[in-house]
Amino acid sequence: MGLFTKDIQTMSDLFLHQLKDMLYAERQITEALPKMIDKATAPELKQGFKTHLAETREQINRLEQVFRLLNTPVQEVSCPAIDGIIKEANQISSDVADKSVLDAALVAAAQTVEHYEIARYGTLVAWARELNRAECAVLLQQTLEEEKATDKKLSMMAESRINRVAA
Amino acid sequence: MGLFTKDIQTMSDLFLHQLKDMLYAERQITEALPKMIDKATAPELKQGFKTHLAETREQINRLEQVFRLLNTPVQEVSCPAIDGIIKEANQISSDVADKSVLDAALVAAAQTVEHYEIARYGTLVAWARELNRAECAVLLQQTLEEEKATDKKLSMMAESRINRVAA
Repeated sequence: MGLFTKDIQTMSDLFLHQLKDMLYAERQITEALPKMIDKATAPELKQGFKTHLAETREQINRLEQVFRLLNTPVQEVSCPAIDGIIKEANQISSDVADKSVLDAALVAAAQTVEHYEIARYGTLVAWARELNRAECAVLLQQTLEEEKATDKKLSMMAESRINRVAA
Repeated sequence: MGLFTKDIQTMSDLFLHQLKDMLYAERQITEALPKMIDKATAPELKQGFKTHLAETREQINRLEQVFRLLNTPVQEVSCPAIDGIIKEANQISSDVADKSVLDAALVAAAQTVEHYEIARYGTLVAWARELNRAECAVLLQQTLEEEKATDKKLSMMAESRINRVAA
């Protein structure tokens, strides 16, 4: 990031910057999820996190495809937002004593991650279309739909059992 | 936050912790928005941020009401997630040269904030209901609906004009 120059001049630069930011975020998520799988107690939550880890790896592949379509090297830039979200998830989960309360906290943390991704992929899809990169928009939209589906599954899990057990 | 003891024992503790985290987040947002108003160029975006600043102040009032309903002192705990989201928004907006590209980046940053709040208030509403605090759930739901409406308005703004001008 330029301390003395402004690196982002065009929408294409901004789009590429956000792709790099998202690649970093997804890679951080693949590192965070195994710890969440370990900490979760409810079997459906453990399984949900495992499924999402596999999905996240596929989402990284899709991002790499987008870089190739743009004829640009696959690169990441650090993303303070996802770092903060993961830091908060770690803090809260180390502060919870009861296992079922911890499950509720883990669902909340995971939904924060999902919403971060929904916001970002929503923006990336809109920018890809505006820049007439329909082939990129299709790939990014696929990930956006997966993130929305994961968020819904987490809500259903929380409301059907996890919050009840914890309360 | 306990370094040696686990401070969160029950769902009520977790609910209260998240309320304190949200109060901190909302207060940070009221500090960040005036800078975003200054940086925005498109009049509808400037106005949108101004409206949201007024809404955010009302959302803080609502959170304070929830604390009073719970008979608990109004307190905040620091929230690394919102700190990271705001840090990233500042970084990217200081890195963009063109005014219309900056507007697109500001919309994206604001939508990240909105989605953070949608995730958190969604969780808070679910937890309030589970804990049989319907009077708190009603207040939190009101804010949740406002955040969803703001996110939609930002999407419409971006898609109708801002991204087009920037591209």
